[in-house]
Amino acid sequence: MTANSFGRMFRLTTFGESHGPMIGAVVDGCPAGMELEEADIQRDLDRRRPGQSRFTTQRREDDRVTIVSGVFEGRTTGTPIGLMIENQDQKSRDYNDIKDLFRPGHADWTYLQKYGRRDYRGGGRASARETAMRVAGGAIARKVLRSLGVTIQGCLIGMGPERIDRTHWDWEEVGRNPFFSPDREAVPRFEALLDRCRRAEDSVGAMLEIVARGVPVGWGEPVYGRLDADLAAGMMGINAVKAVEIGAGCAAAQGFGSQLADEMVVDRSRPGGVRFVSNHAGGILGGIANGDDIVVRLAVKPTPSIHTELRTIDSSGEARIIKTRGRHDPCVGIRAVPVAEAMMALVLMDHCLLHRARSGMFP
Amino acid sequence: MTANSFGRMFRLTTFGESHGPMIGAVVDGCPAGMELEEADIQRDLDRRRPGQSRFTTQRREDDRVTIVSGVFEGRTTGTPIGLMIENQDQKSRDYNDIKDLFRPGHADWTYLQKYGRRDYRGGGRASARETAMRVAGGAIARKVLRSLGVTIQGCLIGMGPERIDRTHWDWEEVGRNPFFSPDREAVPRFEALLDRCRRAEDSVGAMLEIVARGVPVGWGEPVYGRLDADLAAGMMGINAVKAVEIGAGCAAAQGFGSQLADEMVVDRSRPGGVRFVSNHAGGILGGIANGDDIVVRLAVKPTPSIHTELRTIDSSGEARIIKTRGRHDPCVGIRAVPVAEAMMALVLMDHCLLHRARSGMFP
Amino acid sequence: MTANSFGRMFRLTTFGESHGPMIGAVVDGCPAGMELEEADIQRDLDRRRPGQSRFTTQRREDDRVTIVSGVFEGRTTGTPIGLMIENQDQKSRDYNDIKDLFRPGHADWTYLQKYGRRDYRGGGRASARETAMRVAGGAIARKVLRSLGVTIQGCLIGMGPERIDRTHWDWEEVGRNPFFSPDREAVPRFEALLDRCRRAEDSVGAMLEIVARGVPVGWGEPVYGRLDADLAAGMMGINAVKAVEIGAGCAAAQGFGSQLADEMVVDRSRPGGVRFVSNHAGGILGGIANGDDIVVRLAVKPTPSIHTELRTIDSSGEARIIKTRGRHDPCVGIRAVPVAEAMMALVLMDHCLLHRARSGMFP
Amino acid sequence: MTANSFGRMFRLTTFGESHGPMIGAVVDGCPAGMELEEADIQRDLDRRRPGQSRFTTQRREDDRVTIVSGVFEGRTTGTPIGLMIENQDQKSRDYNDIKDLFRPGHADWTYLQKYGRRDYRGGGRASARETAMRVAGGAIARKVLRSLGVTIQGCLIGMGPERIDRTHWDWEEVGRNPFFSPDREAVPRFEALLDRCRRAEDSVGAMLEIVARGVPVGWGEPVYGRLDADLAAGMMGINAVKAVEIGAGCAAAQGFGSQLADEMVVDRSRPGGVRFVSNHAGGILGGIANGDDIVVRLAVKPTPSIHTELRTIDSSGEARIIKTRGRHDPCVGIRAVPVAEAMMALVLMDHCLLHRARSGMFP
Repeated sequence: MTANSFGRMFRLTTFGESHGPMIGAVVDGCPAGMELEEADIQRDLDRRRPGQSRFTTQRREDDRVTIVSGVFEGRTTGTPIGLMIENQDQKSRDYNDIKDLFRPGHADWTYLQKYGRRDYRGGGRASARETAMRVAGGAIARKVLRSLGVTIQGCLIGMGPERIDRTHWDWEEVGRNPFFSPDREAVPRFEALLDRCRRAEDSVGAMLEIVARGVPVGWGEPVYGRLDADLAAGMMGINAVKAVEIGAGCAAAQGFGSQLADEMVVDRSRPGGVRFVSNHAGGILGGIANGDDIVVRLAVKPTPSIHTELRTIDSSGEARIIKTRGRHDPCVGIRAVPVAEAMMALVLMDHCLLHRARSGMFP
Repeated sequence: MTANSFGRMFRLTTFGESHGPMIGAVVDGCPAGMELEEADIQRDLDRRRPGQSRFTTQRREDDRVTIVSGVFEGRTTGTPIGLMIENQDQKSRDYNDIKDLFRPGHADWTYLQKYGRRDYRGGGRASARETAMRVAGGAIARKVLRSLGVTIQGCLIGMGPERIDRTHWDWEEVGRNPFFSPDREAVPRFEALLDRCRRAEDSVGAMLEIVARGVPVGWGEPVYGRLDADLAAGMMGINAVKAVEIGAGCAAAQGFGSQLADEMVVDRSRPGGVRFVSNHAGGILGGIANGDDIVVRLAVKPTPSIHTELRTIDSSGEARIIKTRGRHDPCVGIRAVPVAEAMMALVLMDHCLLHRARSGMFP
Repeated sequence: MTANSFGRMFRLTTFGESHGPMIGAVVDGCPAGMELEEADIQRDLDRRRPGQSRFTTQRREDDRVTIVSGVFEGRTTGTPIGLMIENQDQKSRDYNDIKDLFRPGHADWTYLQKYGRRDYRGGGRASARETAMRVAGGAIARKVLRSLGVTIQGCLIGMGPERIDRTHWDWEEVGRNPFFSPDREAVPRFEALLDRCRRAEDSVGAMLEIVARGVPVGWGEPVYGRLDADLAAGMMGINAVKAVEIGAGCAAAQGFGSQLADEMVVDRSRPGGVRFVSNHAGGILGGIANGDDIVVRLAVKPTPSIHTELRTIDSSGEARIIKTRGRHDPCVGIRAVPVAEAMMALVLMDHCLLHRARSGMFP
Repeated sequence: MTANSFGRMFRLTTFGESHGPMIGAVVDGCPAGMELEEADIQRDLDRRRPGQSRFTTQRREDDRVTIVSGVFEGRTTGTPIGLMIENQDQKSRDYNDIKDLFRPGHADWTYLQKYGRRDYRGGGRASARETAMRVAGGAIARKVLRSLGVTIQGCLIGMGPERIDRTHWDWEEVGRNPFFSPDREAVPRFEALLDRCRRAEDSVGAMLEIVARGVPVGWGEPVYGRLDADLAAGMMGINAVKAVEIGAGCAAAQGFGSQLADEMVVDRSRPGGVRFVSNHAGGILGGIANGDDIVVRLAVKPTPSIHTELRTIDSSGEARIIKTRGRHDPCVGIRAVPVAEAMMALVLMDHCLLHRARSGMFP
């Protein structure tokens, strides 16, 4: 009902603006008794943190998370987990020059139209800074999921016109390069592309792929609360995302049934004794997990914060020219990888609890 | 919380299985005082109805909807609107041959794993028959929206390897051909493709595009209940949909910021005095409608119900071969057009009410 | 978010007006695999049915329920259970005389003010007829609860100035008299009171008590989704209820801490090895069930449909005199007993599922 | 779905334990553009603050609230309002003596049974300290309501066996005595009673009455989201509340229809041109506000934290004797007055938004 909470049984509520004193979150619904400390969350936050390579924004934020409730003597208590990150860098800039201008491709104008006013400091609530709290909440979900054998990994599979070669896929490689690329050989091409962007003061889009392994058969709900629908909402709700694919995705529209059938063969080592010969379904059938890998891809648009002159209007309705200044990621899709992993974790954790609620009551 | 309801303030709850006595729906939250009669709903249902051309299933269903509550003296009363459609064709077939087999690409196996049993008659609750109720609920939403100047149209823009030519786009054409194609010249190609499919006893996927015009600036919510996230959930939750794009969609991942910026120019005739020079955003910025056309595309996979022999297992875990018989649409994407329009209507109507709730209270 | 659904994980949605073609309900969230047939529901409906003694309204309704979905081969499938009851008696009367008048104590005027129109036939949606669907939904919840050892019983403990003597309490007696009274000796006094009411063409209030036994320790949630808060909402939401008490109830306000403490003693035969020496808490501590009987009382006002002349206004705003005609229960509290039992069942079933979702994950 | 949020469109989420570093809240759904500063909230918090008279606990807490988000340049922005209060007094005590004991009448044992562990420091999450955040959130709701002409006042009308004389009722008096009593002459009796309690190291219950004036006709929803049901949930969900009455309340069960009818007479000065001759309904008919004062009463039990020896058990299941030490309010009902006002404000604000969403769309 309200727009700042995500999830039903496992619910993340976030608050805070880019340039206020802090950003925060409440994670409600986490099962009691799990060991949890700040380091469990910090690890994921550090992967999203800006300023880690020359390919992301140089905004300086330590992004140190503090747990302020819901954990006692090192374990979750079942009560809401309050999380906070101070905004350290929030006063370093003067926003007077864009205060009355609407940046094309940003939410400046729609927020003003909706609410009658807006916090113009760095995007306010619409800033991608809010996604730090998704990563923090997602880290808690991930820890619960890991205890159930569910793991989540994400990576960048395309940047602008460049694509990885899927035959080179190596999950180990993802942590070793600044692009979260699973294809080592694509790294130099991505570097060259970003250097070109930087020189042209332009930005570039990216395609990400997020995979969950070990999801038990049966998670998900039919008809409207479907696992695929919730994943689509979670991913499309990330800033700058314009498309979500599951399994075969857009390619399914171009194919034939005879090509896209995921045949089933007997395999006693698999859940339910079944192995799917292919995974065009992306691990979901009828909104319910089939035990195979859940595979989601998302398209992230290039940030509209570019140093090019663009036509816009100002708050008095007059035509103006805008040219964004300041520190921005040339490819926001890179740092979206841990955010998308977090959304996957939040959705799966929610469905884990929904499924536990009703299953196994009658033989 | 429950999986058979869609929407928050304007909520559709559906019930009924493919081969039970009826399917039904409850529409809760419709404003009082609107003229409503069954014909308003039947019109949309007839567009989805099977058996209307040789390119859709020949299952014979009149799909006559009855309003059983919520309307008095020709107008909505603000109380829940009960809707029902009898299943006429539900006893015509013997399902014993597939009762113990799991159709690849269908929800048969996941339903059984989740619930410990399943209604194997024609897919039961997982059948696309349920989407008739989405169309019915969506028709009510559309009527409210029309009174606010919001109109929704959908069409098929691709089928398997075939694409329309967007320069031929003609909304008038959509109602004149059995494919909801906006490109008259693509019709013979689609016909040829479907005839090939039929002969090969194969099926084919489709790409749809749904457009909403006249959506007021400001509808939508920030952060998690975003308009784009809700549309993604609504569309991905339609049976057989594997991808959802908004505006530039997947192409955004391949482009540069300088190409994808939607510049803003002064235009006093437009809402807020602004015209967007392009619409890569698909009418949504920061989760909030910007007044431009809302443009959503969805990829529909080919139905897995094909007359080809496929490997599967049976309920005792043994390897089997299955070959689906019976009447099936070679391209389920065609009849998904009115369903997707309905989901668009339901999402927009929900956001209309959410926006009315909180806006305009303070200057 | 919408006003015609009750519950979160186990959700009842109702529709239909008193004098429309039918009333119906959708029960979403019932676990799969439970044996269910119409007789399971009819039993409870028959206890609420009018016309069973000379002390309730003589409206003739069979109230035959039909299950239209969600049950296959005698068991629930996990999909929504559709329920329907035809309105048989709905055309027998002319409502023109009250069409433009507002009955004091009824929702006529507030519905008109809220919605701009109202279904004036027999109260429309505001009629107590809707409660038949609560009983039907509650019957399903009760059957699940019974399989877990939870039983619910309700009775009438006071009528107008008359009270039962609690030392005579006999649950067996409840089913043997037309008042659901647990005190056999109070029956003649209740009869005399109702005969007086009938002669005076007046109505009388009632106090009910509903008890749930066997509720596992731990059901309930802290802070806002508390078991006591949900029970209060469920009971206060029944037509004509004006007060809800849990355990000591209003008496708690008048007492001292030393009197109201429920001391705890060791009893290995009880859940958690604890017996509470008294039950002023009514089985709930901090919003969570403590394993003792859950005891709720509710005050039902006398129906305002009395044959006395009352001042009112008409739809043109003029002063008028109204005198209700027709068949009405002199004490609506009697038939509220099975309704209140149903609300107790719905609340407990919801909390059963909520508790299952998150408990027992970590040691 | 989660247990630490209250409300649908105007939603309060709280977090924090009694003896953690802070307590906090997120208010989501507040309309944009309202002037708001910390002083608006502090005023209500100060009324609830302990240590203000010798009749409340001497725990020293400044309860200084900080707004950390959602307000920009002195006005709400439509984004979530983050609120925080540091716990200053949280380390002053050693809880080792009660760590393994369950205080009768407290949630100690049920929390442990539900979650497998508990924060034993001062009640943890179950502490009434959490209600400070209800008062803070309620203060924001009240400010919005005031701008619409809706005002809320609460008072204490009974303490243990003592009752106010309603003929002495004076709202002005409420702010002048430490009991929130509207009857000046009852004050010495309340003082004497509390002094007796203090000497006997006992505690005493209280009856409160909360009144909302100026609530527009039509707020509220029918059937399940009723205004009375939501008020009942809100009030019963306050720590130590055991009964909720609306209007005539329990007395309605004892009366006759002829006594309890609220006749309607023409009064052009009133909303809808109607005046109710009496207000047994408590301002609500069919779940919808009728424009009269909304009158709710609640019974607060005496705190079980008394200095009397009580039988209990310890965490190893052995019989023990407990005698609570420390600073406790002899009548927790006093400080519950601002909490109950806040819950009234939260419920009304939620219904304000719900009503705005759907009303006035069609003539």
